[in-house]
Amino acid sequence: MRALREAIGSGRLAPGTRLPPYRSLAKDLDLAPNTVGAAYGELVAEGWLTARQGSGTRVARRGTPLPPQRTHRTAPPPRRPAHDLAPTSPDAAEFPRAAWLAATRRALAAAPNDAFGVGDPRGRLELRTQLTEYLARARGVRTAPHRVVICTGVAQALSLLGSVLPGPVAVESYGLDFHRSLLAAAGRDLVPLPVDDHGAEVLALPATGAAAVLLTPAHQFPIGGPLHPERRAAVIDWARTTGGLVLEDDYDGEYRYDREPVGALQGLDPDRVVYLGSLSKSLSPALRLGWMVVPDHLVDALLAAKGPRELWCGALEQLAFADFLASGGYDRHLRRTRQIYRRRRDQLVATLAAHAPHITVTGIAAGLHAVLELPPGTEPETLRAAARLGLAVNGLAPYRHPDGPLPARDGLVLGYGTPPEHAFTGALQALCLALPPAPGAKG
Amino acid sequence: MRALREAIGSGRLAPGTRLPPYRSLAKDLDLAPNTVGAAYGELVAEGWLTARQGSGTRVARRGTPLPPQRTHRTAPPPRRPAHDLAPTSPDAAEFPRAAWLAATRRALAAAPNDAFGVGDPRGRLELRTQLTEYLARARGVRTAPHRVVICTGVAQALSLLGSVLPGPVAVESYGLDFHRSLLAAAGRDLVPLPVDDHGAEVLALPATGAAAVLLTPAHQFPIGGPLHPERRAAVIDWARTTGGLVLEDDYDGEYRYDREPVGALQGLDPDRVVYLGSLSKSLSPALRLGWMVVPDHLVDALLAAKGPRELWCGALEQLAFADFLASGGYDRHLRRTRQIYRRRRDQLVATLAAHAPHITVTGIAAGLHAVLELPPGTEPETLRAAARLGLAVNGLAPYRHPDGPLPARDGLVLGYGTPPEHAFTGALQALCLALPPAPGAKG
Repeated sequence: MRALREAIGSGRLAPGTRLPPYRSLAKDLDLAPNTVGAAYGELVAEGWLTARQGSGTRVARRGTPLPPQRTHRTAPPPRRPAHDLAPTSPDAAEFPRAAWLAATRRALAAAPNDAFGVGDPRGRLELRTQLTEYLARARGVRTAPHRVVICTGVAQALSLLGSVLPGPVAVESYGLDFHRSLLAAAGRDLVPLPVDDHGAEVLALPATGAAAVLLTPAHQFPIGGPLHPERRAAVIDWARTTGGLVLEDDYDGEYRYDREPVGALQGLDPDRVVYLGSLSKSLSPALRLGWMVVPDHLVDALLAAKGPRELWCGALEQLAFADFLASGGYDRHLRRTRQIYRRRRDQLVATLAAHAPHITVTGIAAGLHAVLELPPGTEPETLRAAARLGLAVNGLAPYRHPDGPLPARDGLVLGYGTPPEHAFTGALQALCLALPPAPGAKG
Repeated sequence: MRALREAIGSGRLAPGTRLPPYRSLAKDLDLAPNTVGAAYGELVAEGWLTARQGSGTRVARRGTPLPPQRTHRTAPPPRRPAHDLAPTSPDAAEFPRAAWLAATRRALAAAPNDAFGVGDPRGRLELRTQLTEYLARARGVRTAPHRVVICTGVAQALSLLGSVLPGPVAVESYGLDFHRSLLAAAGRDLVPLPVDDHGAEVLALPATGAAAVLLTPAHQFPIGGPLHPERRAAVIDWARTTGGLVLEDDYDGEYRYDREPVGALQGLDPDRVVYLGSLSKSLSPALRLGWMVVPDHLVDALLAAKGPRELWCGALEQLAFADFLASGGYDRHLRRTRQIYRRRRDQLVATLAAHAPHITVTGIAAGLHAVLELPPGTEPETLRAAARLGLAVNGLAPYRHPDGPLPARDGLVLGYGTPPEHAFTGALQALCLALPPAPGAKG
């Protein structure tokens, strides 16, 4: 039997080869028929042979591929639009392939052997140390490596936080529905907060009954205002008096084009603010690398929620990013892309001023997206027009909390970071064609 | 104010610099005092300035680091034992750094730009295609790329499966408590199955009421037997008659030393078996890369559970591994490490035969771990002796399901893959000293 198995395993007996009936093989080998019969049975059960009524016993076609995808199941990914201004990814063509490879080479050369063993759920110390220095320098974050927890992105951070927070979470009434769903899936009730051009109206925060508030202080997403200085002070006061936490989603804090960026709220009170960041906007959403900077008293609970060992974040990419930070590669990439996105935003504003002066761009000169205000009631038709032109762009509606206290606003959320450089001008032209005509103008 | 902000941001105004009282600055600038007062207030709220009673208004030390870790919180990782035979990691020193870097270089050069955008939760098609070919060839898995779902490892796979399965899951009464916890956390009741030297006693599977059974057919973990051919056939019959699923954890199927490995159970019925694999044993648990091969009817549910976009698995490592497979690097690494681990297991068996002939090694010549049978009742004392010798090794007790139908067995589970080559012989010597003496021998 072992000989048979090896003959098949080594390919000497080709798949499909018909074996002699076990009785005749038994006779040839001078063995008891049921011995050979049992051997055949084992080989069938182990997947080496197939027995079928009529066609006898044959060498199995191990791993015969299955029929290709039946398209009525699991639809293929949607095909790419002609013009892509869907928020809010960085330009995938700008990924610094050579610099990232160099960082990976250095990281692989320098990594201690234990980097290839089971990982610490806090993440690699090399990365937490580099992040502590970088976030202080670039974003005014005040922390220490033992307060940094590496994760696959802000989504995982919110799932983990949602599972350890003791009560409801206040959220901006305009924001990522995706983030709201993650908090809800983790068992948190959500309390929507009004949002205006100065960010969330934190004075509306409940005096009791909210465990935390999720904010985008540097650049409200999507509306686009920075949190007003008085509100920055007020939300810290709220956290101190109620014992609540501020969850600061600093998703694009590195991209400010008109001035030095406002520092992270976390710097005002590291014991009451959880700072969240990732590489999804600055480098690529495909790397799945993010970080939480947490108050000392929350570290153990979050690590318990993450689990006893690192199940999520690859050590090599952590070490490559640590090197990318230490070697200045990240700063260089940010300086370069800041110029690209700043130029695109200027071009967007200039194009609208020239061709659609009745449409205003709200929010500050920052990040990878802009919101265009639309006349009341024109959002759905504008989106249909965009679709007809093959232009991918979002409306404001999907970002609005269903119980949001504000009346719904009409607008477009567009990501000027998304398309490759060569396609940007064409995308803006399509946008102008999709926009509603000026009041009184002939459609 | 903007001038002030930029002076601070650029560092021209050093942290700690004391600013003039706003009244005198107002006088100098010929501005209304409350204008300047308000400006100071904003800069404080933005984190640029600090105002303290008495010491006046100063330029903030942005990102002042916090005190280092207070050790009574988040304990540092345990320090490494003198001799490490803890199951079941591959030897971290054997990670193929140069070959992996070369695969990463080729992957980065060949990657389309969309690889740096938001990812498909199924995983990269390049990898799913390579895995389809590799798993057919190496493990007899019958699948197609659209039935492969990439994940961060078997742990994530079990969490996702646990969330979509409609009922209880039968588990081997000896197995990873960690895996049982993941299924339980996903809401699944667990039904322990007896395990003997022929694997799980699948004839004890309930005729109704179990949605699935989690098995380690190629090499029962930890006891060490392969699932008996009759049981392989029987569990497939069970799945077909009850509509249940078999979850096949093929955690070390590539490491068989005495013969061609038994093919994956999945090859017997791709519509009733979910095949689970990862790089954690074959390459490194630090890469966080695994795969599920699932029946067609389960694909959509698992993708829905995973979410609308890839939040977990980095695209670059997926592409690097796809290249590693296509270029034959993975096969070369497996051939090389198979020789290393085979030699270590032989050395373990020979050492015990020479120095502790009363101790038997159970299970087949496969994988990265072995179980040593101990005289009844001697497991705890043996573990204490090992600890005194600085030897990391596990007992059988933590692997036993608390409601396991079998009487507890005494034994050691040791990972001969774990230590670096130079430390292996010393670890075996420590092991021999820790083992209980032969009956009648002078202790």
